[in-house]
Amino acid sequence: MLAAGGSHPRLADAVAARLGTTIAPRTAHAFANGEVFVRFGTSVRGSDVFVLQTPTDPINTWLLESLIMLDALRRASAKTITVIWPFHPYGRQDKKHRGREPISARLVADLLATAGADRLMTVDLHTAQIQGFFAGPVDHLRAQPLLARHVRAAHPDADLTVVAPDSGRVRLAETWAELLGGRPIAFVQHRDSLQHGHGTEIVGDVRGRVCVVVDDMIDTGATMAGATRLLREHGAAQVIAAATHGVLSGDAPHRLAASGIGEVVLTDTVPLPPAKRFPGLTVLSVAPMLAEAIHEVFDDGSVTKLFEGAEGHKV
Amino acid sequence: MLAAGGSHPRLADAVAARLGTTIAPRTAHAFANGEVFVRFGTSVRGSDVFVLQTPTDPINTWLLESLIMLDALRRASAKTITVIWPFHPYGRQDKKHRGREPISARLVADLLATAGADRLMTVDLHTAQIQGFFAGPVDHLRAQPLLARHVRAAHPDADLTVVAPDSGRVRLAETWAELLGGRPIAFVQHRDSLQHGHGTEIVGDVRGRVCVVVDDMIDTGATMAGATRLLREHGAAQVIAAATHGVLSGDAPHRLAASGIGEVVLTDTVPLPPAKRFPGLTVLSVAPMLAEAIHEVFDDGSVTKLFEGAEGHKV
Amino acid sequence: MLAAGGSHPRLADAVAARLGTTIAPRTAHAFANGEVFVRFGTSVRGSDVFVLQTPTDPINTWLLESLIMLDALRRASAKTITVIWPFHPYGRQDKKHRGREPISARLVADLLATAGADRLMTVDLHTAQIQGFFAGPVDHLRAQPLLARHVRAAHPDADLTVVAPDSGRVRLAETWAELLGGRPIAFVQHRDSLQHGHGTEIVGDVRGRVCVVVDDMIDTGATMAGATRLLREHGAAQVIAAATHGVLSGDAPHRLAASGIGEVVLTDTVPLPPAKRFPGLTVLSVAPMLAEAIHEVFDDGSVTKLFEGAEGHKV
Amino acid sequence: MLAAGGSHPRLADAVAARLGTTIAPRTAHAFANGEVFVRFGTSVRGSDVFVLQTPTDPINTWLLESLIMLDALRRASAKTITVIWPFHPYGRQDKKHRGREPISARLVADLLATAGADRLMTVDLHTAQIQGFFAGPVDHLRAQPLLARHVRAAHPDADLTVVAPDSGRVRLAETWAELLGGRPIAFVQHRDSLQHGHGTEIVGDVRGRVCVVVDDMIDTGATMAGATRLLREHGAAQVIAAATHGVLSGDAPHRLAASGIGEVVLTDTVPLPPAKRFPGLTVLSVAPMLAEAIHEVFDDGSVTKLFEGAEGHKV
Amino acid sequence: MLAAGGSHPRLADAVAARLGTTIAPRTAHAFANGEVFVRFGTSVRGSDVFVLQTPTDPINTWLLESLIMLDALRRASAKTITVIWPFHPYGRQDKKHRGREPISARLVADLLATAGADRLMTVDLHTAQIQGFFAGPVDHLRAQPLLARHVRAAHPDADLTVVAPDSGRVRLAETWAELLGGRPIAFVQHRDSLQHGHGTEIVGDVRGRVCVVVDDMIDTGATMAGATRLLREHGAAQVIAAATHGVLSGDAPHRLAASGIGEVVLTDTVPLPPAKRFPGLTVLSVAPMLAEAIHEVFDDGSVTKLFEGAEGHKV
Amino acid sequence: MLAAGGSHPRLADAVAARLGTTIAPRTAHAFANGEVFVRFGTSVRGSDVFVLQTPTDPINTWLLESLIMLDALRRASAKTITVIWPFHPYGRQDKKHRGREPISARLVADLLATAGADRLMTVDLHTAQIQGFFAGPVDHLRAQPLLARHVRAAHPDADLTVVAPDSGRVRLAETWAELLGGRPIAFVQHRDSLQHGHGTEIVGDVRGRVCVVVDDMIDTGATMAGATRLLREHGAAQVIAAATHGVLSGDAPHRLAASGIGEVVLTDTVPLPPAKRFPGLTVLSVAPMLAEAIHEVFDDGSVTKLFEGAEGHKV
Repeated sequence: MLAAGGSHPRLADAVAARLGTTIAPRTAHAFANGEVFVRFGTSVRGSDVFVLQTPTDPINTWLLESLIMLDALRRASAKTITVIWPFHPYGRQDKKHRGREPISARLVADLLATAGADRLMTVDLHTAQIQGFFAGPVDHLRAQPLLARHVRAAHPDADLTVVAPDSGRVRLAETWAELLGGRPIAFVQHRDSLQHGHGTEIVGDVRGRVCVVVDDMIDTGATMAGATRLLREHGAAQVIAAATHGVLSGDAPHRLAASGIGEVVLTDTVPLPPAKRFPGLTVLSVAPMLAEAIHEVFDDGSVTKLFEGAEGHKV
Repeated sequence: MLAAGGSHPRLADAVAARLGTTIAPRTAHAFANGEVFVRFGTSVRGSDVFVLQTPTDPINTWLLESLIMLDALRRASAKTITVIWPFHPYGRQDKKHRGREPISARLVADLLATAGADRLMTVDLHTAQIQGFFAGPVDHLRAQPLLARHVRAAHPDADLTVVAPDSGRVRLAETWAELLGGRPIAFVQHRDSLQHGHGTEIVGDVRGRVCVVVDDMIDTGATMAGATRLLREHGAAQVIAAATHGVLSGDAPHRLAASGIGEVVLTDTVPLPPAKRFPGLTVLSVAPMLAEAIHEVFDDGSVTKLFEGAEGHKV
Repeated sequence: MLAAGGSHPRLADAVAARLGTTIAPRTAHAFANGEVFVRFGTSVRGSDVFVLQTPTDPINTWLLESLIMLDALRRASAKTITVIWPFHPYGRQDKKHRGREPISARLVADLLATAGADRLMTVDLHTAQIQGFFAGPVDHLRAQPLLARHVRAAHPDADLTVVAPDSGRVRLAETWAELLGGRPIAFVQHRDSLQHGHGTEIVGDVRGRVCVVVDDMIDTGATMAGATRLLREHGAAQVIAAATHGVLSGDAPHRLAASGIGEVVLTDTVPLPPAKRFPGLTVLSVAPMLAEAIHEVFDDGSVTKLFEGAEGHKV
Repeated sequence: MLAAGGSHPRLADAVAARLGTTIAPRTAHAFANGEVFVRFGTSVRGSDVFVLQTPTDPINTWLLESLIMLDALRRASAKTITVIWPFHPYGRQDKKHRGREPISARLVADLLATAGADRLMTVDLHTAQIQGFFAGPVDHLRAQPLLARHVRAAHPDADLTVVAPDSGRVRLAETWAELLGGRPIAFVQHRDSLQHGHGTEIVGDVRGRVCVVVDDMIDTGATMAGATRLLREHGAAQVIAAATHGVLSGDAPHRLAASGIGEVVLTDTVPLPPAKRFPGLTVLSVAPMLAEAIHEVFDDGSVTKLFEGAEGHKV
Repeated sequence: MLAAGGSHPRLADAVAARLGTTIAPRTAHAFANGEVFVRFGTSVRGSDVFVLQTPTDPINTWLLESLIMLDALRRASAKTITVIWPFHPYGRQDKKHRGREPISARLVADLLATAGADRLMTVDLHTAQIQGFFAGPVDHLRAQPLLARHVRAAHPDADLTVVAPDSGRVRLAETWAELLGGRPIAFVQHRDSLQHGHGTEIVGDVRGRVCVVVDDMIDTGATMAGATRLLREHGAAQVIAAATHGVLSGDAPHRLAASGIGEVVLTDTVPLPPAKRFPGLTVLSVAPMLAEAIHEVFDDGSVTKLFEGAEGHKV
Repeated sequence: MLAAGGSHPRLADAVAARLGTTIAPRTAHAFANGEVFVRFGTSVRGSDVFVLQTPTDPINTWLLESLIMLDALRRASAKTITVIWPFHPYGRQDKKHRGREPISARLVADLLATAGADRLMTVDLHTAQIQGFFAGPVDHLRAQPLLARHVRAAHPDADLTVVAPDSGRVRLAETWAELLGGRPIAFVQHRDSLQHGHGTEIVGDVRGRVCVVVDDMIDTGATMAGATRLLREHGAAQVIAAATHGVLSGDAPHRLAASGIGEVVLTDTVPLPPAKRFPGLTVLSVAPMLAEAIHEVFDDGSVTKLFEGAEGHKV
């Protein structure tokens, strides 16, 4: 049984179509003061329910709607409940940088469990350790191979260098380097200290190369735009940006379009309505991958192969 | 130690002033995609912390900010954490009316406990049973005596009748009838059945009486406006509305102002900025009551007397 | 698989007969000092077990026997355990009225969960919020429609008024008014304050009407007898009492028989042995409703329709 | 702060007197249908509360009263709650003998924790492993030294043999043998098998000896009476019975008085009203030991020495 | 699905062969610093998994490997997980003897639950109360009948006396006495007190008898060797030792071989490699019993009959 | 109150000396079969206890000893328990790389909580996200500044380049680059793919530079030795290795000594007995930092400044 929150109907429909099923009917509205209400329209007693939601703007409301759907399903005697968050909210708050900070990614995982989630399915977490924040099983799907296949096909003969926009993404860049066929890596070093000044530098060779800057998400676009500018200053032939989650908050579409990036490749884990689209943007759908994973979970098959990525198509 | 969320700084300041203390310094912001972040600026290790927040519009964001503050405080080794929600969100979803609905008030209580709340302090719950949803101690303060004292003082010689706007509020009306000195009660009966038509009726005598319509909250104002119209049709001399929580969503201020109500008496559990104020509105502050309750909790004194209401003043 | 405690064998047998099954064999006795012991006689490994018990006099012993049965079933590897309490004990202690009181209804729900209950099935809770006290799914069946059908059939042409015996039951009276075909309501207002004296008054018109006084349970019968006397003083043509749970403690049968009530309609959620029966008492069986609900739960069907009541018959 | 249930006021008063304090005032009653209600009369906020109760006849009611008191104290913000059960109910159900039985001693420990108990203080458990059933700290006090001192003083020159009434009490008998100054042991072997007949035999020498039959509790007295008869048949000079818990259900006083036992030595962990007293019965009070243990716990001192027994006196 | 740790491959293979299945493939190794790592080679999603492990030397490593396997299985969405520990580690630490000791048997049970165990299957616990330490169902199998059948067949005409090596094993000896056809019992009394000297004595008659000394485990062999010497001093005709768990730490094989024991009968719950074997040792396999129990659990049949023991054979 | 396990007495003594206190007396031994036993020698009732242990070889035994100490302390009514693990075991297993793997770092955190840990203090976690695995507060101390101060002082005029031995350590290298005064970074790229061959490459400039290879721990030394060889092949002037945790399993000391590394700088979070020492090894003590943190925790002060590192000295 496939249920869906209100955040990303297009993806939910695509997954349902792929599975040859329909989204469970529900009544949902917000009270005048913003309190969310959900009621499901058909019996879920004894069912294995999958609840698809992308917590995106307004992110806290969609997060809470997820929890409230879980509560309704649990109280209606669903047998198991799998939350599908193609984009995991609060993933960037996965550790304390300084004292008296929250670890919101862990908190969110605990909230899911409290509300009744038995299992979590998600795509390209900000850090893989977040799997360990949830007490139950986590199916961590990978969309990077999907993105990499596109880049490889689009640039068959280019001298590609994979670029990490900061030191924390170098591991990701190394993975990409393999997916693209054994490419060199570079990364942007950031200097933040009071004594030695702020600034950025490129470590590794980029001159004359087609640079693929990779990240798990693009939020404001500032990091990507800054990396692009820096790479071009260092003589990069072309800059391509690739990331799984196109959050694209605020001015991000404009900022990216104006940054000199040649192409931006994203997936549809987060909804990308026309207002967020811009020239040079390519969007690949994760719907086939999600559908396949649900199918395997339902049949008690193996999802392991999906950890290395699955097929997809442009949307 | 008194901490506060970002929802209702005016109330927080008033409570702090009353206690002769200051609000704990904090850094708070939202990421571009709406994710909330909070860091506290001073050590809370070993402290008894009170966290004041009013989940109001945008209600899910303030609710989540409450949880994230709790997580930060717990991870920073606070000794005990008391959440103060003068207005308890999702209180109206305290039971299932039909199948496959959530009981969001219980869910919210569980989320509080998961995030680290040891104790909850709140004012005039939608139903008193919500106390039982939270696993730890709940200090349930009463603002009705505060409101009643004002009504009584403002209408010393009137022939008051207390009116419940629906059958579920008759118990509340009975409490008010006592607070106002042994008054008669009336209530609005609702007919909802398909066979017998929809409609409302007044049970009890209201002709020529000054009617005090009482409720725990006024949200859209539609219930109050409807009751006022009905009472006036049945010959009420005047209609006064009294409620603890002035949610006043959307057009509520206009709707109330236009309904023919003589006076609306509320408290400041929910922020009432100038845009929500209108002629005939009186707002009484719960800050003194909250301050006194915090003081007693901190000193391990008795809060029981506050269950019957405490002093306040107009704001 | 249907198991039963020792409190209400007649109801258990009726439910089993309706389901075409038998009660699971068990050995049960009390030690000399009153400690309860239970052993089940057939394997329950992997079974969905329903445990039927009505905590009634001696209420704490039957309550504890319920918990001990749950422990035995859980340790014997039952797959799921559904507790069926047609009458929910301690339902009246669902909130704190004053400081330092327990919320025993929540405590009892937690004890059930601790002992191994996965799901609770019950009938006409004292307040619907008690559903939220239990962490798992609650199937809250309604016997009011069963009672109402009887009253309607027995008094097809009467001018019925539904009467709530106190302000907290007005919502219930409103529900009954609909079930009986859109009838007027009245209720008994109680005055308890020191300043204004104690006493009761009728709000709404009852003169010349056939009054149906409704409640969830009749315990000592004092409330019902008092309401009857008051209604007759105010000119009621006839008084009928209707309630789901016939606890009938102590002198209640005598008190009701002597009160001038025309008829008392109850169900058999609580055992009503001959010593508790009296002229004018009608008892309707909830066995068909329970059997149907068990059947639906077992088949993962929908119990939602039973929330609006099911068929029954006199016993 | 010392609170007490209604089961054993005499012991509670003795402990309070010893501590120079008073029992916390409370209102307690049962509803007509047997539901228990408790409200405490003074603030317990921030207090370390000790709750003394002896679950005895009606055992399930006193057990539940214990839980309800815990719930009230926890919801009233008590800082820590220590349950004092001088006699631990359901201790004999500490393992499964056959399939589909409960382990009620573990269940009861879990119920205590669910209701809010932080720590348990108890005397001479049926088996010491029950300490491990409770998740929190258990102070397991020993009354056997108190009993042994009495026996030793009363029979300074006798040739004592310690007798275990069954094979499971031989370890206890060995402990007693040391307490009495290095005495020989005997025990009663039970034969239960179908093929080889039922019956009992004495293992060890008892002829001409003063036999001290030891046990943790005397319930119906049948075991003790049977052992006495058997010992006298085997030539014992005299038989003395010693046990911590004088449950003495039903005919036990009469049965013991008529059995030919020379003396029965018990403590007052369980109330022994005049109706349960008989010639030859000696009762020693555990009140001094309990008072001392409470004092040490409150002062964060060491209770370890009390594990080896403390002073007492006849009552 | 049958998984196995690395501690006892021979038993695992025997159980698998008996069930006609194979052990689930896994990759397991220790990091250089001793950290254990396990990965399973086939999908376990939705499976009922049985995990067989005997925590033996190095006992803490095998214990932790058990927990890590559980974590891997739970995170891989196994439906239910049953731990099979033929020998339960830390069983001797089942109570506090003095202050500030752990109850490690309870701790270990809690660790199992934390790591994801739903059910525990084990053989001949040190004390039966340990069943109550685990929150879920425990299948407690009995190998004593298997051992007793062997002893009975090997000594059909002997005058057998069952001997408990200490007072805590007399209950076990009584059980054996029945299994062997209604035999007499004796036991070794230990004196430990400072005043009365240390030492041991035999209670019961052993002269000229074939003594079967019974215990749940033989660890260092010192207890058995001491009992043998004492029995022979008291004129026993022959001494046979029987125990379920042949831990045989350190010099135990040598000590037993040199003690004058006629025969030592053990099972293979703990691995007994050639280096631990010695003349006079008989080892019976529990593999058939475990296989049968797994079969019944998987088919939701009754394991109760296995509580009284099952067939086996020498290995 | 400071307690310590048996793994690292030298560090425990140093911390105690620094605090001017002594280690709590305890009795500890292993049973013949390897089961660990611990008893504390003085009352811990009501104390804030700190338990210092370094899980190192035999790592699973020390880990279990930690848990058993926690159980003993909790059952002895310690008020709060803080575990101090200067080296966090199983930190490398912080995520699933492939299907059906455990996340042992999360498991270990859950085991700590189950055994009774309220708070965890640790030094330089393998990844900072592990903080989020533990439900309670984590004080994550930093020894990198201590190491960096030493390197800086020892090489005041060198052209330092910070080198990450793999892509996952580049973020750490960036931190070091700041600590050393704004230095350039390089890292070792690993190629693992089947199609493109295995191998390593240096990204960034190292020719003629003094290279500081940084890591959180050195286990087998193979990574460090490999990096050193590669750096020297690429013309590095000198290679220095710096890491917090000197696990140095097996041949590591020899391997490092033979690798051509100029200097290895470690702390004493893990014991480094003479057998593990070699020429060129410098060991700095974290005892002052731990002592200061304990002091601040005990006084409810701020540990935040220690997150940025504290003083230390060579040992």
